[in-house]
Amino acid sequence: MGLIVELIHKKRCAKELTFTELKTLITGLLDGTVADYQMSAFLMAVCCNGMTDEETFSLTKVMLESGKILDFKNPHCIDKHSTGGIGDKASFILAPIAAACGISVPMVAGRGLGHTGGTIDKIESIPGFRTGLSLEEFSAQLKIDKIVLMGQTEDIAPADRRIYALRDVTATVESIPLITASILSKKLAEGASGIVMDIKVGQGAFMSNMSDAKKLAQSLIRVSKKFGKKMTVLLTDMNQPLGNCIGNSIELVESVETLQNKGPHDLTELSLILAAEMVLLGKKAKNYNDAYKKCRQVLENGEALKVFYHLIEKQGGDVKFVKNLSLLKNAEDKTIITASKSGHIHKILNREIGELLVTLGGGRTKTGEAIDFSVGMICHKKIGDAVKIGEALMTIYHHSAQKKLLQNLASYFLIKPQKTKRLPLVYQTIRGK
Amino acid sequence: MGLIVELIHKKRCAKELTFTELKTLITGLLDGTVADYQMSAFLMAVCCNGMTDEETFSLTKVMLESGKILDFKNPHCIDKHSTGGIGDKASFILAPIAAACGISVPMVAGRGLGHTGGTIDKIESIPGFRTGLSLEEFSAQLKIDKIVLMGQTEDIAPADRRIYALRDVTATVESIPLITASILSKKLAEGASGIVMDIKVGQGAFMSNMSDAKKLAQSLIRVSKKFGKKMTVLLTDMNQPLGNCIGNSIELVESVETLQNKGPHDLTELSLILAAEMVLLGKKAKNYNDAYKKCRQVLENGEALKVFYHLIEKQGGDVKFVKNLSLLKNAEDKTIITASKSGHIHKILNREIGELLVTLGGGRTKTGEAIDFSVGMICHKKIGDAVKIGEALMTIYHHSAQKKLLQNLASYFLIKPQKTKRLPLVYQTIRGK
Repeated sequence: MGLIVELIHKKRCAKELTFTELKTLITGLLDGTVADYQMSAFLMAVCCNGMTDEETFSLTKVMLESGKILDFKNPHCIDKHSTGGIGDKASFILAPIAAACGISVPMVAGRGLGHTGGTIDKIESIPGFRTGLSLEEFSAQLKIDKIVLMGQTEDIAPADRRIYALRDVTATVESIPLITASILSKKLAEGASGIVMDIKVGQGAFMSNMSDAKKLAQSLIRVSKKFGKKMTVLLTDMNQPLGNCIGNSIELVESVETLQNKGPHDLTELSLILAAEMVLLGKKAKNYNDAYKKCRQVLENGEALKVFYHLIEKQGGDVKFVKNLSLLKNAEDKTIITASKSGHIHKILNREIGELLVTLGGGRTKTGEAIDFSVGMICHKKIGDAVKIGEALMTIYHHSAQKKLLQNLASYFLIKPQKTKRLPLVYQTIRGK
Repeated sequence: MGLIVELIHKKRCAKELTFTELKTLITGLLDGTVADYQMSAFLMAVCCNGMTDEETFSLTKVMLESGKILDFKNPHCIDKHSTGGIGDKASFILAPIAAACGISVPMVAGRGLGHTGGTIDKIESIPGFRTGLSLEEFSAQLKIDKIVLMGQTEDIAPADRRIYALRDVTATVESIPLITASILSKKLAEGASGIVMDIKVGQGAFMSNMSDAKKLAQSLIRVSKKFGKKMTVLLTDMNQPLGNCIGNSIELVESVETLQNKGPHDLTELSLILAAEMVLLGKKAKNYNDAYKKCRQVLENGEALKVFYHLIEKQGGDVKFVKNLSLLKNAEDKTIITASKSGHIHKILNREIGELLVTLGGGRTKTGEAIDFSVGMICHKKIGDAVKIGEALMTIYHHSAQKKLLQNLASYFLIKPQKTKRLPLVYQTIRGK
């Protein structure tokens, strides 16, 4: 049996692999001595047999060290990551808030793939905004401006890109150790001292049940700790869109409105909570209540909005588009979906709403596809809301030819006669020791 | 999620796949719509999560139907398969015995790979012998001569070849359902009404423990039954070589001597037992004792040897090489390994003996490598035998330059002062209902 086959066999037998063994596998994948079909067999063995914390740490380390690693050596430098969801635009709001409170926020964000949108796609609806920074530009801007936003670069964790591409087509995505290593190999390279992690849980999230989400949270915290990085994890709801808007331009508009303190309650509140955790983790507040108060203050006094405008200008974006939001145009046609009966909203097919956006061209099914920034939708109701027959449930901005794609959308909202509770924003906050 | 990813995911979640789903996967592998890295992830999921009998049946059926399928519709047509071992040359003896008792024996045999030898390599040490028959020649000869021996052909179970090549490099070889489907997809295509399966168990076999061997036996019997084929499985010992000779030419010599009823006891006896099971399964005897008696008779009266000579001639082999065995030359140099102390043989490093043959050039590490027919060895002792200091343990026929490869070979034989039992030839016989 060759060495590579032996290593796969070891994981197949649920044994623990050493750092050196994992390094042999991963560097072999990158230099071509390990074939894709060998890596995918290994990944499936990990899915079936799991990994110890020590193994997950080693795997993360190998993947992290496959690329460049920044370290700002700044205790006030805090990163944020969300596992992704429908209408999740909180980064645009919490990052300026945290920065306005004295936190340095190095954001390396992704593009949308599948049913969830991507921060980089949304921000690119502002003409001129440059997301393709070099790591040098990224570092320089962070030091001067305390905030910077760039797209993922080839330089950071190249092993993760290769592995993720394989996982996506081999049914090996859902695995606590593999998700942990994938997230942390990128996040630990971004040079922050601590990370606030927003794990979305629910029908529109990658984690659909609380038990898996908690396991992931604990794994992320334990492995981060082995790297000497502090982490706070929030398990937050993703059974309905965050905020009301879903799309690219339209989510940016809602983000700016939220920074103007005119946004929807759920988005505003969750952004404040996440920002407060960053401020706390970055030692710019005595305690959580203090941090939250500071965050609310910079939101209400417009300082956070000012940081956001500055970020747009600094990275080449045409700031008039965020100062005059009517310039961010929606698609020409509008369809309103109304309730076919009165009652209360019990459930929203959240994932399907995300998939509808992809169908309209606002998301992508393959890496590299172009995005239509102008299509999008507004959800007018949340779970727990009362609704009257004929009342608007959803407004969709689309192109005329897409009208036929909008069948049966009223069924995305489950209406029952009896009342039901609103969902919490945050299920649990776990602050790593 | 694409359809293929969904199917892999289903097996990942230990759910049962349907025939149609397995067909989609396997035909996709052959037509290129399923990538190797997807198939290897699927195979690893099978290794970790197993398969139901119904799934194993479906997988076997899809793989079987990927190629040509013979059916001789002859209740006296019985095939034999061995999972392979060191010095296992029983096919050359039992097939002529069974044929001489009225059984039709369609043999499609393999080449050696890894530490075990291959029937086709051994027979090719006879100049002129053609193993590359077409399926038409194979069928025609079986009808006329009741015995035929050919190498594996591209026409039979091409899916198995593709899958086996992947399993070999992805640590997915040891899996009861995958082994079952691999063996049966080939064996069921060979047109016999029943199969006698020799599962080797021990240090020199692919199955090293009895519990796995029994599981494989039961799986083979149950799945064969679903195809309407009768099967008898024998679990036989492979903790030491079968017979005394290991090599290609040298094993053929020992086979002919055994057909002359001058062979070693273990090889003679096991060949008779397996042949008797074939005669019983092929309804040419009332019961096992009757079958065994008939087999012994054709061995003792030379009829089996006559069948063997005829087989060699019929397939173009130069029969003078089997009539005058001294023409089958051993390599020019000879080294005798002797015991460094007196006592009893407690253990033989059987697998290592097989690997030594490969090192000397008598086996291959990669498909397609040439074989040196002339190298080989004779084991002079079996487990349980008494041995005196200085007595010969093993004679090795090799080329002069290979002398340096023959270090420490005495350590292949574990000698202890106390007596120990001889090993049984057959651990268990399981006749499918």
